Order: sequence, then C-alpha cells, then structure tokens
Amino acid sequence: MSEITLTPEQQEQLIEDILEAAQEKDVLRTEKLLKELVPEQIAQLLETTPPELRHFIWEHVEPEHHGEVLAHLNEEVRTKLLETLNREEIEELAEELETDDLADIAQSLSDENKAILLEALDEDERVAVETAMSYPEDTAGGLMNSDVISVRGDVTIETVMRYLRQLGELPDNLLELIVRDRHNHYLGVVKLSDLLTHEEDTKIEELLDASKPAVLVLTPAKDVAKLFEQNDWVDAAVVDSDNHILGRITIDDVVDIIREEAEHAQMAQAGLDEDEDIFTPPLVSARRRAFWLGINLLTAVFAAWVASFFEDTLDKIVALALMMPIVASMGGIGGTQTATIIIRAMAKGVLSGPNMRALIRKEILVGTLNGLFWALATGAFAWWWFGDALLGFVFGAAIFINLVAGAVAGALIPVILDRFKIDPALASGLMLTTVTDTMGFFALLGLATVIILRHSV
Amino acid sequence: MSEITLTPEQQEQLIEDILEAAQEKDVLRTEKLLKELVPEQIAQLLETTPPELRHFIWEHVEPEHHGEVLAHLNEEVRTKLLETLNREEIEELAEELETDDLADIAQSLSDENKAILLEALDEDERVAVETAMSYPEDTAGGLMNSDVISVRGDVTIETVMRYLRQLGELPDNLLELIVRDRHNHYLGVVKLSDLLTHEEDTKIEELLDASKPAVLVLTPAKDVAKLFEQNDWVDAAVVDSDNHILGRITIDDVVDIIREEAEHAQMAQAGLDEDEDIFTPPLVSARRRAFWLGINLLTAVFAAWVASFFEDTLDKIVALALMMPIVASMGGIGGTQTATIIIRAMAKGVLSGPNMRALIRKEILVGTLNGLFWALATGAFAWWWFGDALLGFVFGAAIFINLVAGAVAGALIPVILDRFKIDPALASGLMLTTVTDTMGFFALLGLATVIILRHSV
Repeated sequence: MSEITLTPEQQEQLIEDILEAAQEKDVLRTEKLLKELVPEQIAQLLETTPPELRHFIWEHVEPEHHGEVLAHLNEEVRTKLLETLNREEIEELAEELETDDLADIAQSLSDENKAILLEALDEDERVAVETAMSYPEDTAGGLMNSDVISVRGDVTIETVMRYLRQLGELPDNLLELIVRDRHNHYLGVVKLSDLLTHEEDTKIEELLDASKPAVLVLTPAKDVAKLFEQNDWVDAAVVDSDNHILGRITIDDVVDIIREEAEHAQMAQAGLDEDEDIFTPPLVSARRRAFWLGINLLTAVFAAWVASFFEDTLDKIVALALMMPIVASMGGIGGTQTATIIIRAMAKGVLSGPNMRALIRKEILVGTLNGLFWALATGAFAWWWFGDALLGFVFGAAIFINLVAGAVAGALIPVILDRFKIDPALASGLMLTTVTDTMGFFALLGLATVIILRHSV
Repeated sequence: MSEITLTPEQQEQLIEDILEAAQEKDVLRTEKLLKELVPEQIAQLLETTPPELRHFIWEHVEPEHHGEVLAHLNEEVRTKLLETLNREEIEELAEELETDDLADIAQSLSDENKAILLEALDEDERVAVETAMSYPEDTAGGLMNSDVISVRGDVTIETVMRYLRQLGELPDNLLELIVRDRHNHYLGVVKLSDLLTHEEDTKIEELLDASKPAVLVLTPAKDVAKLFEQNDWVDAAVVDSDNHILGRITIDDVVDIIREEAEHAQMAQAGLDEDEDIFTPPLVSARRRAFWLGINLLTAVFAAWVASFFEDTLDKIVALALMMPIVASMGGIGGTQTATIIIRAMAKGVLSGPNMRALIRKEILVGTLNGLFWALATGAFAWWWFGDALLGFVFGAAIFINLVAGAVAGALIPVILDRFKIDPALASGLMLTTVTDTMGFFALLGLATVIILRHSV
C-alpha cells in the first residue's frame, strides 16, 4: 500500500516542527523534517518565513532539491537566496534543473554567477537556456522547455520504441510525442497510448493527430494559459513563425501562470507587487507602499477640495458632515460591484462590442434600481434621525445620484483603461473612488445648498 | 502542417461575427461559425451574451457539443439552458459526457429530467454517476471520473497491451495506469512511457511507482488542487478510506478549480456570487446586491453615529468635515494593503504560528512607519491649507493613529475570521473599513475636541 499524503493539519504541524527545530538550530532534526516536504512546499515555507530562519532552513534543504525550490520561489526571495550560493552549488543547479527553470533563474543571477551556470551546462543545454532567455519571460518562449521528444512520421512504432529505450530517462508527464518532418517542421502529435494499442509495424503518420496546433513562441503567457484551459491540453509544442519546433510547454508551468495571474489581480487592487518578499525589511516595504497611499491621498484631497467650496453650507448644516462619508461609501460599493463584474467578464476574453454594451446597460439599470430603493430607505432614515424632511430628501437624492454615478463609472472605467492598455485591476478601484467620493460630496452639498439654503433664505 | 490556433484578435472578430449572425437570425452562418470554437469557448460566449441571443446561439450549437458546453457553464446559466432541452437531447448528453460532468449536470436537472438522464446510462455509468452525486461537489469525490484503467501488478506488459487494445478508445490525457491488487486496493501507478521502454515480458510490479499516493475521496477540492500543484501531477487516483479505488481526477478539472477559487476571491470581495449569470434580470440582480449595500450602509451609519457625538466640535471647526473622509480613506487603504498580504500568505497554506506573528509584527511596523511619514506630510499640508498649526497637528495625528489602526485591523481581522471559519476574502474588507472609518472619525474629532476646543476655551 502506498503512503497517503499529509492532511492539511498534519502539514501545519510539520511546518511548526520545522520552524521550532530551526529556531533551536537543531540541524539534524531540521534536515530530517524537511525531507518530508516536496520542493514546492519548501518554497512556500521559505517565502512565509522571516529572513533569519529562512536562511537557516535554506542551508539545510537537501542540495539536490535546491534547484526545484528556487524554481518555485518568487523573484525577490529567489534573488536573495541565490546570493548565498557558492560556485559548486551553482554548478549543481545546472545538473538538476530543466532548461525553462534554468533560464528563469539565470535572470536573477549576477553576471559572474550566470557565466558559471552557463559554463556548467553541456552544449545543447546552454543553447536551450540562451534561447529561452532570449524570449520575454511572459511568453511561450519564456515558458518552454527544451526536453522535446520528436519523431518522424515515416517511421514505425517499433523504431520509435527502440529510440525511446535508447533515451533511457524520459521527461516527466510525457503524454505524447511531437511529430516532425525532416526539416524539423511541426506536423502534429502522436499519443503514447496509441503507440501501445497498435501493432509495432504501424507507421507513426497513421496515428498522427494533425489537428492539435503548436503554440507560436511569442504568444503571451496568459493566452497560452487560455489555450491549455480551453483545449484541456497537458502539453503543447512551441514553434517559431516558420513552424520549426523550438520546445515544449507542460501543464505544471501553465498552472503556475494561472495562480500568478490570480495573485497579480488580487495584489494589484491594493497597489502591491506579487513578486515582493512578504518579509521585505519594513522600511523598504513602507517606502514602496507610500506611493500608493500618496496617490490615494491625492484623490481624497481632491474630493475634499470640491467639498470645500460648500464650506458655508457645511457650516450651517452640520449634519451634512455626517452624511458625506455615507454617500461616498454607498456609491463606492455599488460601483465596485459593477466594476468587478465588468473586469471579470473582460478577463474571460470573449466580451465583444454588442455584448459589452448590453452588459453596461444592464449594470447601469441595476445601479438605478438600487439607487431608487436606497434613496427611499436612507431618505426616510435621515428624516427620522435629523427630524428634517428636506434634509432627508437631499440625502436620499444624493444617494440615488451617487449609486447611478458609481454604476456608470464602474462600467466605463475598466473598459476605458483596457482600451489604453492599463491594467484595470490596478487602477479601476482608485479611479472609481475618486469619482464616487467627488460626485457624492458634490451631489450632497450642492443639493443642500440649492434646496435647503435657498429655501430657508 | 497543422492549423495554428486563432490569435486573440481573430477570436474576437469571430465572436463578433457570430453575434452578428445570431442577431440577424442567420442560422446557417451561425452554425458554421460556431464550429470554429471549442466547447469551452462556446460556454464563455454563452455566459457573456444576453439571454435573447444566448438561446438562439445555444440552439445552433452542434448537438454533440451540448454536453461539453454545459459542463463548462456556470451554474445559473447552465440551469437555464438545461430547461430548454427535450428528452432526446438529454439522452444524448448521457452518451457524450464523462461521469464527473454528468454528476455535475444532473444536480442542475429537474427530478423528471434527472430520471431520464440516469435511465439513458448503462449500468456501470449509472452507478458511477450516482456515486459521484453522493459526494459533495467540492470534494475529490465530486471531481472524480469513473474512467479508471487499472491493472494488476502480477501481469506482464504484454498482457496489459492486449487489454488496452481490447478497450479500443482510451480516456483523454492518459499518462499512467493505476495498479491495484486483486481486491481493488490502490498500489500505485505505472507510466505509459515505462511500458513503451521496457521489454514486453516485464512484470508491471517491476515498473510500479508506489510512491505516488492516491487522494482520499472526501479531500476538499482546494486541497486536491494544492496536491496537484505541489507535486506537478497530471492525474491521480481517488480512493475510499479502505484504499479501494473509486475513480480518477485529471488536471483539466483541477485547473477549473483553481480558476474558480480565484474568481471566488475576486467576486467575494465585492459581495458577489461567482455562480451568478452576469445577465441576470436587473431586478433580480439589484435585489441580490442590495443586501451587500445594506450591510455597508450599516457600517457607514455606525461610523457616522460615532462622529455625531462630536457635532458641537464639527459645528465650530467646519474644516474637520473635509478632513474626515481623508483620514478614513488613508486608514482604509493602508489596512487593505496589510490585509491583502495576510490573506495571500494564509492562502499559501503554510503560514503557521511563529511566522504569522512575525508577519503581523512586520506589518504593524510598516503601518507605523507610513503613519509617521504621512502624519508629517499631511499635517504640514493641513497647516498650510487651513492656516492653523493646531488643526494641522490634529489632522496629522489622526492620520497616524488611523494608519496604525488600519495595519493592526488589517493584520488581525483575516486571522480572526479564519479562526471562525469565515471566508476572509468575503468579510475582511467590510470589517476593516468599519474599523478605519470609525477610528478615523473618533481620532480626528476626539483630538480636535480635546486639543483645539479645550485649548481655545
């Protein structure tokens, strides 16, 4: 019977034990416990451990796992740990890792160490790593691996099987072989399972699946992920514009892309960088975040500046000061709901013109309906709270106006940002609150000035 | 040479053409163009198309793709489209789909149609679908498929190859066979590539990889996703607590889980449900969102109520009304940054006690540093704006207090929610703004009352 994987509770316990052992500088116990984790788990442990313990743990990871762990670390943490490696350890990396990971890591190395790494590779691998490094990291070329096994269409299964036996070790997760012509052009794939279920004298071309396309080397990583998802691929060949086979992308790298995309969206909303070490020294971290706080301060000050034109009104009706944040917040929330729906629909990548317009119309209608409902509810509430029907009316009307404004801004801002190639996840929230704060203050104070003050004069 | 997949621009054009054809009720053109999309793309198109056109397009999807399209639709849209199917079409689903998808879809069918579907299945499949339906959807049992190919360890490669040839069609993305004993207990796996590279008289047990564990049937889906990611699996066997083989999970279903998790996190932040049809009728959609707006209103009113105790102060210093939203917003942004870091670190699943405490300490320190910096900057600014040093001091001090409060709340709220098994993505933002709004108003108005009013009396 095979071992069952650890439950999340057991994993948590194991992590705590490792931290305890590391804290006590218990080398033997740390090393023993670390052996129970796979490299990806070690990478996560290192990312979520403060620097002092992190280095101790890192030094006691089995050297043959160094490469895999580095491959799974985020950029900032990886760069720091790479600085601790000596020549021998860098040379060891060269032996362990596949070319896509080597290319990734090489980019975080100092020039000197990069040279050591490249020298330690054999000719084929060095060419492969240098090729991978020549493509942008976030394209098919940056994701691909050089461990392609390709065969010609005019040979028999028997020949292929002999060839595979000669190769000895085959790449992980090998599902199909790539079929090429004599000039290394991509023709399609043949499944390993088809090789097994056909007679040995069958020609490869009879089993060829020519309908599976290859991925162009400059395809953006997020489009590669979409192709894999839409077609349920486990791997795919990468070709240049002349259809020459360059490498192979496997699903495990695509899964990492999908995770990173999701993390990026989440972090960008708060103006954070997903590549940052969560244990960056506080002063550095504070400085980086100050920028985002500063931008936000500007938008809040802008809204306050608009409100400042109504100081006389505020001076006369102090209840407005209590209402201002409520009006702004309702518009902001309503607008965020709309913007989230629009951003998600855009991310699916199939929201074209007519559908987008239909969705925007629907969202504005939803905002209007909620505006009407909450205008009545909040208006009645304010009437009761401040005992002033006119003030209740002004409050309700401002809520209505700001919920509609929020829906309109929430629908249009992501579309406009996208058209200007600005990441909607990053900037939508900020622009949206600028609109809803300013519009909320303006509607509330403007209406109060026009309706109540003029009325009472 | 094989066809190259569509570029995103071509895909967009194709989608627009389909919508145009559907708008013009051009049946032939719609059908022809739809053939260029894979089922997952058709599903995305249907989700992002308003109901009138959606039904027209759906009716012209090739019937043999109905099943795969349904399998990729979100629940609400799927349920609506299933209602349009007649008996014959439901029976057709039974033929096309794998048992995991059938179990999913069956749960959205009326009882009558569910019976039709189950009757159309053969004995084995019906048992498999009913088994899958008996496990919660978000567990390994709900994800698994019954298309397991398992072999005994004491047979030779030759026997296995004969068996595979008899089976004829093999499941998609078959990378390895599951090895069992005579009582259907899970022993491990054997790679197809190993079958190809060894002599035919080799026994399976010699090639057995017993180190790959099976997944327990009640493992939560998100833990299954983690196992696949950490171990770079493409498939895995599912077993019951007695280690009997029940089914198999493949990476394509895991990729869907990862996407859904990311969508859930994104939507939950705005109080939205990722299973909702984006074209839900506006009135229904408005009613659903009203709940979230209502909760937010309560928190905003609470903060205003706290501020209302300082009405006298507000009445005397009207500039405070302009400062209130700024103080609240700075604390909210700072707190959101901290909460995002903590939520992300928790999602990695390895943030245990000591590391969590170190991270919380670091975040509070970052908040304090930014608090100091922005207190000086905003204090000086307010002094200049309102020409009042004391008011500048009060404003800066309130900003400092609220940035520290935001960091503390942003660090602790997700941890506390998690301990109470409440989804931090859903409730953190709301609770955080409640804290930062209330604390911001209290600090600003309280300090003004104590320092300026007392001072001036």
